[in-house]
Order: sequence, then C-alpha cells, then structure tokens
Amino acid sequence: MRVRIVVIGDEILLGRVTDTNSGMLARMLDPLGWKVTGVTVVGDDADRMRTAISNALDDADIVLTTGGLGPTRDDITKQVLAGIFGGGMRHDADVLANAERIMNARGLKINDLTRTQAIVPESATVIQNPCGTAPVMMFSRAEKTLVAMPGVPFETRAVFPASVLPALMERYPSAAGTIEHRTLMLTGIPESSVAEILAPWEDAQPQEVHLAYLPSYGVIRLRVDTIGPRAAELADKAHAELAEILKQYVFATDDVTPAECLLRLLGERGLKVATAESCTGGNIAHTLTLIPGSSASVQGGVVSYANDVKTDVLGVSADTLAAHGAVSIPVAEQMARGAARVCHADVGIATTGIAGPGGATPGKPVGTVCIAVSACGEVVSHTYHFPGERSQVIDRATQSALLMAIRQITR
Amino acid sequence: MRVRIVVIGDEILLGRVTDTNSGMLARMLDPLGWKVTGVTVVGDDADRMRTAISNALDDADIVLTTGGLGPTRDDITKQVLAGIFGGGMRHDADVLANAERIMNARGLKINDLTRTQAIVPESATVIQNPCGTAPVMMFSRAEKTLVAMPGVPFETRAVFPASVLPALMERYPSAAGTIEHRTLMLTGIPESSVAEILAPWEDAQPQEVHLAYLPSYGVIRLRVDTIGPRAAELADKAHAELAEILKQYVFATDDVTPAECLLRLLGERGLKVATAESCTGGNIAHTLTLIPGSSASVQGGVVSYANDVKTDVLGVSADTLAAHGAVSIPVAEQMARGAARVCHADVGIATTGIAGPGGATPGKPVGTVCIAVSACGEVVSHTYHFPGERSQVIDRATQSALLMAIRQITR
Repeated sequence: MRVRIVVIGDEILLGRVTDTNSGMLARMLDPLGWKVTGVTVVGDDADRMRTAISNALDDADIVLTTGGLGPTRDDITKQVLAGIFGGGMRHDADVLANAERIMNARGLKINDLTRTQAIVPESATVIQNPCGTAPVMMFSRAEKTLVAMPGVPFETRAVFPASVLPALMERYPSAAGTIEHRTLMLTGIPESSVAEILAPWEDAQPQEVHLAYLPSYGVIRLRVDTIGPRAAELADKAHAELAEILKQYVFATDDVTPAECLLRLLGERGLKVATAESCTGGNIAHTLTLIPGSSASVQGGVVSYANDVKTDVLGVSADTLAAHGAVSIPVAEQMARGAARVCHADVGIATTGIAGPGGATPGKPVGTVCIAVSACGEVVSHTYHFPGERSQVIDRATQSALLMAIRQITR
Repeated sequence: MRVRIVVIGDEILLGRVTDTNSGMLARMLDPLGWKVTGVTVVGDDADRMRTAISNALDDADIVLTTGGLGPTRDDITKQVLAGIFGGGMRHDADVLANAERIMNARGLKINDLTRTQAIVPESATVIQNPCGTAPVMMFSRAEKTLVAMPGVPFETRAVFPASVLPALMERYPSAAGTIEHRTLMLTGIPESSVAEILAPWEDAQPQEVHLAYLPSYGVIRLRVDTIGPRAAELADKAHAELAEILKQYVFATDDVTPAECLLRLLGERGLKVATAESCTGGNIAHTLTLIPGSSASVQGGVVSYANDVKTDVLGVSADTLAAHGAVSIPVAEQMARGAARVCHADVGIATTGIAGPGGATPGKPVGTVCIAVSACGEVVSHTYHFPGERSQVIDRATQSALLMAIRQITR
C-alpha cells in the first residue's frame, strides 16, 4: 500500500511549528509494510490544498491529512474536502455530543464556534476523536481512501492507532506485506568510515537487503531493512554479520537511544544513577527521566550552574575551583563523586563546560566540556570540544556523557 | 518570491528523523517577505525526486532542497540534479580541500568515499559548506534557481544565512516585499474563546491584516501578519488593540516563550532562581538553561526523584512525606523553599507529580502534578491534572510552572 501524507497549516509553512505528525504516522504504518511515498506541506489555502490532495490521490492508495480542522477562521479543510468528494454539509449529533463532552472535561462550556465542529461533509464517514472537538473524517473514491485528522499531535497519536488504522486494515485486508527492520547502534566512528568498512559486505547482499545510515550526535543508527518472503531470515543474518564486523563500535543491537541503553544496563545490574550538571543544565536528568520506568534507576541530581551550588550542594572544593576553574577535569570528577554521594547513587555523571555563545576564556573556547563518570567509586573523565551552537553543545555533551557512562559500566 | 522546499531522505519518510530544516528556512525567508508555498518530502528514490523537483520548479521562483548529499550509497541527489539541469560531472579542487579541512578538524583522515564529495555537476555553481564535507550547489534555469543543501540541520543553519541567502538576494534584488509580524503571548484561555472574543474585531479588519492562532501547552501565540505598503502601521495598530482587548490573558507582548519571559523578568528585578524537580526530572532547569545568558539568573537546581534526595538535599520533612505522600502540596512547597535555600536563590520552582504511565494511586491519577513557587519568602501552589502521555505531562507541568513563576513575580 502506498500512502501519501498532506500536512495542512500556515504555522508549519512559516516554520513556527514543526510537523511531527507525518513521522509519527510513518512509524505506525511501517510494521504493516505500508510505505509513505511522500509528504506535502501546504498552507491554509484552498487552491493549494486541492492540488496537493488531488496529486496525492493520483499517486497513492491512501491519503492521510493532518491539520486545518480547528474551529477558527483559518481552518478550511472541511470545505475543501466537501468540494473534492462532492455533496453538501450535514449536522452530526454525535460529533456535537463528543465536543460537549471534551469541553466539559476541560471545565469549559461549549461556544458557538466550537459547535460548528459538528458540521461535516455528507461524503464523510465520521470517526470520533476521543481527545478533541474536531471529528476525524474518512472519504472514499473508487479503491482509494482519504482520512482527515486533526493537526494536534496528541489527538492524532491517540486516534490513529486506535480507530483509523483498524478501519484502514479492514478496508484493505490483503495488503499486509512483509518488511523487517534490524538496528545496530554505533558510537566512536564517523558515517563515512562505517560506509567504507561495509562496502564489500554491501556489494555481496541480495536486492532484498537495504542498509540505512541514520547519524546523530556521536551515534550512528545503522538499520537493515529487508522485504519479501525471506525478510525475517535475511534480516537476522545481516544483523548478526554486521554486529560481528562492527563489534568494537556497537553499544546496542536493538533500536535504543543511549539513555534507554544506560537505563537498561543500570536496571540489569541493580545500580542507581545521579547527575551533576553545569553546562547541560538538567538535560541529562531530563533525557533519562523522559523514559517511563526511569524512577527505578534514577535517584536524582543537581544542576549546579552557580559555583556556590557546586561547593555547597555537591561538596566541590573551593580550592579546586580556584586552582583549576569551574570548567576543569578535577571539578568534573568532584561533581560526579558528589552527585553519587549526596543522592545516594552508585553512578554519578557530571558535566561542566562552556555551552556558549558567551563564556569563552583563553584556552577554553565555546564547546569545551569536561565530562566525568563515577561508577562504584572509580572515576573516568575526558575533555571534549563540541562544535555547534548552544543547544547543540548541550545535546552533544548529554549524549557523550551517557555513552561514557555506558562504557564505564560495561567495561 | 515563491519558494518551494524539497526535503530528501528515506529517514524522514520513515519517521526516524523529523524534518526541522524546512521550518528553519521558512523562518529565515520570512523577514524578506519570501513565502514558502509548499514543502515536499521524498525518499532516496530518483524518480520521485525528479517529479518533486520538477513540480516545485514549475510552481515557484526558488527551490531549496535539503538532504541526500552524503557520501553513502543511498545519497543520489547530485546525480538526479545533473540529470535535470544537464551536463556531466566535474572534479572541484576547492570542495576537496574543504572536505580535507573538515575531516582534519575532526581529527580524521579523508577516505575515498568522502573524496567523492568533490565530484559535482558541471551545471552547478558551488558554495562552500563551512561545517561539512558536502558542497552546497546552486543551479539556474531561466529566471528560476535551485539550491541543493545538506540535510544535517547544523550545516544548513550555518550556510543558508551566511552564503545562500545573500546569493539569492543578489540574484533577485527587487524582490524584497514588505511584511510585518506582531505577537501576543496569552495564557489561561482556550483558542476557541479567544476566537469568539475577537470575531467582531476580525470582521472590522482590512484585507492586509491576518490573524494566526498558534496554541501550545497552556499558551496561545497570537500573531498578526500584515502585508503591503502600510504593513508596519497596520501591524502596530492591530497589536495595540489586541493587547487591550485581551489584556487579562497577555503575559508578553512580543514573541517569547514562558522561559524567555521569566528570565527577562528575573533579570530586570535582579532575582536568582532555583528549581526542585521531581516529575519534570530536570526539564524546567533544561528549558531555562537552553537560553543564552541564563546563567545570569539561574543558580541551579535539584532533581529529587527519590524521596531521600527530597529529604537529604532539599530538606523536605520526612514527617510531611509520610503524612501527605510525595505528590502533595505541602511537599511541593517545602521543595520550592528548599531549592531557593540550598541554591542561594530568591525564587524556587518545584514540581512533584505522576508523569505516568505507572505510579498512579487512588485519588492521584497519572497527570496529577503539584507545583509550588516560592518568591522572596512567599509560597504559592496549585495541583494540576494534565492530560496526555508522559512527555506531555512533563512539558505541560514545565510550562505551567514557568507561567506560575511569571505570575508570582509580576503580581
């Protein structure tokens, strides 16, 4: 099945909001072997919406639209779809009841504007939206289907797997293909070197095996995609071969982030972790605690931006601070030990550095970050020089700290 | 000028990576009045790439592509562009020198695969990429221009404003339109109620004035866009009128996030802030410290996931914890006071709650979050019930805590 996604909204085109819906939908379609062949973003403009939807219907079996279903005046998708699929508009009592329920649950009374959500095209089959006032609408033309969904990611994420996908699978019962993915997580090697190492291996692969490189800060996600009747067997074989060829760079053989990998290792070993963050400002703790169940291994941490927090809360020596400066290996090591001690943890992860744009000193340019990991009493540390602007330095320092902790625990 | 963006890469279509380049480009084009009329995402597939690029060239004056320029085998954009614009390939010594410089700066030796970056279409004018090995390439057809840029956001963000935009402005000197934006930041009111309040005002506006609602957790960004010779005057008038009509909901009259607004208020008043985070796990500290210059007002904070961190680091009373539970107003208030005290700050912001999916208890469902703000000795607090999954509860609690701190400081 070929799926096209049309994302509607001036706010996306203007770059004020980033579209995350299309990726979310692609990830949910992927296990069925249904392929997203293109994503088109258009503004709240009837002509461009019509062109994008017509092109998508020509090309794909299924078209999914998100956005443009709110009650405000710039939301015109419903009218455009009624124009494309024919017929007039009708009032839907169930949609009104759902909208009233949603507004009541938010402690609000429904107003006239929100009441207009219940006006839907006659050509649409309505799917109730459990999380919002805008109805999800399904349209058919010959063998093709269009589903219009709201733009709020929370609503689409709730309604798509629960109601839309089952309805589509019912409509196309024979279309479940076979596609398999396997992932290796690599660190300590650039993408081009992996590609060079793997060139002979890639040349020897059959057509059904495809390799994708997905690099991010300090990490390459290497994904094997296989398709066809032998997909699972080929994927397992390729995965095992790649894990062997690249073994010195592999930190996980499944699709996990460094944070997920670290939490899993801590859980297996019954270890607790604490953080002491200066330049990463809480991002390491945030990255870990974003993961469900992290409270089993995360004791807590200290964000020690000011020097007196480093000394008074973490117990860093004022003499060490004076002698080496806040951005130094001795301070990072005392922070890591201090975090583990005051938070009663086995592992302490510490960062101190210059995220920029200000703060550089002679010999310590922006991007200089000292990272230390204290694991069961033993401390390792390293000074990094990260490129990029503030948010990138913070992200790279965070991922590097997590990878350092993984290495320290597994060595 | 009409601009179309074509985003290239299987990883985007599969939803493994979210496209942030198109929004970034749109935000940089916006001040010129150059409008992005559509974004198309295609995979690493020559036919689909050709179709998307041809359609974009038909529709727009300028086409920007991102992605597909890496040295690995799935990156085929260069070949496709040579096919579209004609001519063969040539070797570019400057691109090779740049690639060698980049690899050396990373402490790596250039390999044969990376050397292929220096092979470029004869029809392309090369713009050097200061941050990566892939060259930026500019192509012309009649009055139209296509610029191919790398997919790595860091590289595109660096090269676009510095080199690509000036080259485009030089090519189209008369195309600087006049467009103005003004923003109001609102909290404490749903989008539909704002729209209902503003309906008569909107009806009275001239064609050149357009209103956009950009809601996110607990906040609505209300943007006035005006166009034409009177753009600035109309924008100022509309902005002042809206600020008056909505004054009880406005927390800022410019385009700032709650975190930016809070840091500005703290700076103006010479106040220092500290955080005590349980369920938000460091995200409040991270959100604040992501902003350049935040170290002037942020002392630090404590992530007190475990109860013994709440008692031992923040000084929360064990009796209070036993009597009320960790998720309670008394604990939140002691955490806020404790953060301010141990981090030597004037303002303490604390959260304790159940982010889910586990952890719910009778009477305290997932999404229950107690937030307290201690400002100069006085404490306010509130229990919220946030909908959504873990990451949404964390985000909503973070924004609500920042807004509570803004209200407490400005009241």
